[in-house]
Amino acid sequence: MTKYQVAKNDHVVLISKSRSRPNSKSIGQRFCLTIEDQSQKIHGLGVYNPAKFVGLSYGSTITLGQNQYWLLPATALDQVDTIRRKAQIVIPKDAALIGLYCDIRAGSQVVEGGVGSGALTIILLSLVGPNGQVTSYETRDDFAKIGKNNIEKTGLGCAWKLKLQDISQCISETDQDAVVLDIPEPWTVVDIAYRALRPGGILAGYTPTINQVEKFVISLKTKPFIEIHTFETLQRELVVKPGSVRPSFDMLGHTGYITVARKVLEM
Amino acid sequence: MTKYQVAKNDHVVLISKSRSRPNSKSIGQRFCLTIEDQSQKIHGLGVYNPAKFVGLSYGSTITLGQNQYWLLPATALDQVDTIRRKAQIVIPKDAALIGLYCDIRAGSQVVEGGVGSGALTIILLSLVGPNGQVTSYETRDDFAKIGKNNIEKTGLGCAWKLKLQDISQCISETDQDAVVLDIPEPWTVVDIAYRALRPGGILAGYTPTINQVEKFVISLKTKPFIEIHTFETLQRELVVKPGSVRPSFDMLGHTGYITVARKVLEM
Amino acid sequence: MTKYQVAKNDHVVLISKSRSRPNSKSIGQRFCLTIEDQSQKIHGLGVYNPAKFVGLSYGSTITLGQNQYWLLPATALDQVDTIRRKAQIVIPKDAALIGLYCDIRAGSQVVEGGVGSGALTIILLSLVGPNGQVTSYETRDDFAKIGKNNIEKTGLGCAWKLKLQDISQCISETDQDAVVLDIPEPWTVVDIAYRALRPGGILAGYTPTINQVEKFVISLKTKPFIEIHTFETLQRELVVKPGSVRPSFDMLGHTGYITVARKVLEM
Amino acid sequence: MTKYQVAKNDHVVLISKSRSRPNSKSIGQRFCLTIEDQSQKIHGLGVYNPAKFVGLSYGSTITLGQNQYWLLPATALDQVDTIRRKAQIVIPKDAALIGLYCDIRAGSQVVEGGVGSGALTIILLSLVGPNGQVTSYETRDDFAKIGKNNIEKTGLGCAWKLKLQDISQCISETDQDAVVLDIPEPWTVVDIAYRALRPGGILAGYTPTINQVEKFVISLKTKPFIEIHTFETLQRELVVKPGSVRPSFDMLGHTGYITVARKVLEM
Repeated sequence: MTKYQVAKNDHVVLISKSRSRPNSKSIGQRFCLTIEDQSQKIHGLGVYNPAKFVGLSYGSTITLGQNQYWLLPATALDQVDTIRRKAQIVIPKDAALIGLYCDIRAGSQVVEGGVGSGALTIILLSLVGPNGQVTSYETRDDFAKIGKNNIEKTGLGCAWKLKLQDISQCISETDQDAVVLDIPEPWTVVDIAYRALRPGGILAGYTPTINQVEKFVISLKTKPFIEIHTFETLQRELVVKPGSVRPSFDMLGHTGYITVARKVLEM
Repeated sequence: MTKYQVAKNDHVVLISKSRSRPNSKSIGQRFCLTIEDQSQKIHGLGVYNPAKFVGLSYGSTITLGQNQYWLLPATALDQVDTIRRKAQIVIPKDAALIGLYCDIRAGSQVVEGGVGSGALTIILLSLVGPNGQVTSYETRDDFAKIGKNNIEKTGLGCAWKLKLQDISQCISETDQDAVVLDIPEPWTVVDIAYRALRPGGILAGYTPTINQVEKFVISLKTKPFIEIHTFETLQRELVVKPGSVRPSFDMLGHTGYITVARKVLEM
Repeated sequence: MTKYQVAKNDHVVLISKSRSRPNSKSIGQRFCLTIEDQSQKIHGLGVYNPAKFVGLSYGSTITLGQNQYWLLPATALDQVDTIRRKAQIVIPKDAALIGLYCDIRAGSQVVEGGVGSGALTIILLSLVGPNGQVTSYETRDDFAKIGKNNIEKTGLGCAWKLKLQDISQCISETDQDAVVLDIPEPWTVVDIAYRALRPGGILAGYTPTINQVEKFVISLKTKPFIEIHTFETLQRELVVKPGSVRPSFDMLGHTGYITVARKVLEM
Repeated sequence: MTKYQVAKNDHVVLISKSRSRPNSKSIGQRFCLTIEDQSQKIHGLGVYNPAKFVGLSYGSTITLGQNQYWLLPATALDQVDTIRRKAQIVIPKDAALIGLYCDIRAGSQVVEGGVGSGALTIILLSLVGPNGQVTSYETRDDFAKIGKNNIEKTGLGCAWKLKLQDISQCISETDQDAVVLDIPEPWTVVDIAYRALRPGGILAGYTPTINQVEKFVISLKTKPFIEIHTFETLQRELVVKPGSVRPSFDMLGHTGYITVARKVLEM
């Protein structure tokens, strides 16, 4: 058995060969599974025992019921795409840019405020890798439960700690490389986040409204944070057919504003 | 001496406290240095021996000549921002999205076609970390030299291999997690890249023109690649003053199109 | 009876007071009527004799069946919004920009290639006014019929002439201020349009794909046209609630590219 | 002499055949002149008596000093492009969209709050034509003087009235088709504008910041205005060379938000 055959505990994705997902011409419907030896009910697929996939070649096609699927190792994007959603999620493109602007990389120590459905958490975990640490604060039991469930399925949970605590009351971690806030009132956490960060550590907030941006930025200016700036990102697909290329009509007009700031010791 | 004091071989950034950079209200001019015990000529700063910074606290302010600077650990963004540029670079936001869509993370094995000035390489190296590998192919001596010089300054070079070879002739690496092409004719590498990728590995191309996108996508469709799609990303800053928030007038209207495709064994 | 009461032959709009239109929070469903003394079947409203509205005050509320409506004079936007659509229409924002870039104003003489459902025609007619002229060429009977029907309802038809002819064969009008092409192959009309324009007259093409833009621009460069340029426009709504302002999630990612060029006698 | 030869009192534009304007590949430098029999100092051209152009053919090339120019009838866009600017102007694309959303057309009666440098006024005048009326309120003498000067040069002034009065104190016109506000505090004019509009008349505000939008919209909701909505528009050029088409790098990231609302008699 080679490394490109499905093995126990692998995290795989099944991608439908029929392009059934509404509003999308390029991306098929997908299902993420962990290869465990017990039957699972997979929403949209039915009940399967994934152990029967052991030994199959990655990149090959399998048939389940009436449908054919490509069998591949799951990416972080696959995993975010298939989580159960309760809260509005941080879109992966924004999560990746938070990673970039916070300089999150292999080994980083990150505190996250608000786990929501775990979408941002999954991307952060994929960035910090097994030697890093993401600690997520969440006050709502329902989000914590869903987020935990979603993250455990990804196999990234070993670098993750969940705290059912209010981040605006306390961050007990110190010397953090980054603090990332996906909460409605990030300005309530500015002082506490400042203390949790190492010198040069970066605070990021993700907020849908411009009023939140304004309050957050005003609050950031009360502490020694430099290079405070806010941006939004718009992503647009090209529909490419030979001799007929045009931008996609489908486009998300807004996701959220990303605000970042960098801790110094004095202004 | 604590870990938040400057130590030998650290990679630091000096950020000007005067906001002198043209066309930018939020981001100051910056200089990246390696703390080595030999005088360096730093373009825009003059000649300094960085060893004299050893023991200073990160996050503190230092004075050089007439100017004051914040002293911080350098981020990948700082490093890209200060490289010597010869070619048009891959903008960091696009590099981070290539990372996301190629699922590049700690430990990934990546082949890069076209090192240019090394901007994309630096972001890829920061993502794969010390246990990953980025192998860059470059045919032009001048780019290879500048790229090498830029990358060596970042401290990320240990995970990097440079090959002065034409990627459209051969990729000797196999089982790669991703192949990233920043070359004018990525369609000439589709067959070779397919062979270099592991099943489920992802091929990405970065191209400024729509004609290149069209040719690349047509070429991708001749091999077992799935989920071929192309997108562009626009980033816009918000200028935030209390009671007066508006989008920035300064905006880059175009960077490049990112096309991604995922290897399977059969269609 | 004042001028702000409904009179015979007026063109009115009824705007639903319940915000029932899907995907829109700010704009209600609307129905355009001409005040004629004969019962009409209005799709979505049922059968009514609009003569019964004569004498009612504009700006007041009326009740039809279970629903309440504001009664207002119809704008060109109302009329475009309620036309029967067969072809993809030129979005009003693009029509207004074509008007601007072609300098179409009261009294202008304009030739239109491709009447489609008449959306662009309606905006052009509202711009040229009763002393101008819009001549539309259309080869497809079905479009001509629908377009004619839509335009006649607007009351703008007196300045309009429809020709069931192929514009790529002949434009018999001369000294035109503008020629506006909403046809799949505008490059086939460049020579003919050049001859139909007065010196300084402006040719505009509206095309969804980038390949069409490329062919059209190449063709324009074979004749004495100056200031050839192409642009696209993206429009995004703000959702404004007190204390909570954000861009709308709903956004049309693409409509069409507008290419304009100005006739001179020699290069 | 035909109508396509320059005649006395014509409004002409000279467009440089060398593409000298910075940051623009497609649009040359231009100069707008009125054909009067007196020498004029034209900024950038020197002193000329435009009467010497009488009888020349539109669309032909003329030589002045070392440079060659195309000679054409001036469009409204040419005229806005060449005004002397003191205030931030309303960009023509936004002016055209204000025209569309306010249903301004041949014969419309419009009140404008804030004449600034007259850019918006010129577009509105070109839309209402000789049988319409634009009445502009301006409190600042310096703007009024520059705006008046700019507008008089266009030949559109016969449909224009300037009032050196504070629009937030009084609008003496009634039954207006539209009121367009390009002033810093449009919310101070909502009551007065409501009274000046006919039923179904449309109020538009143009504001650069989001805070202004919020205050304006809140204020609009205190009166019987319907279909209140706000949008911004982004325009991006395509750079078209055969085999190499891409969006322009140069793009204006922000101009202003347009907010419109429609008067009814009761909510």
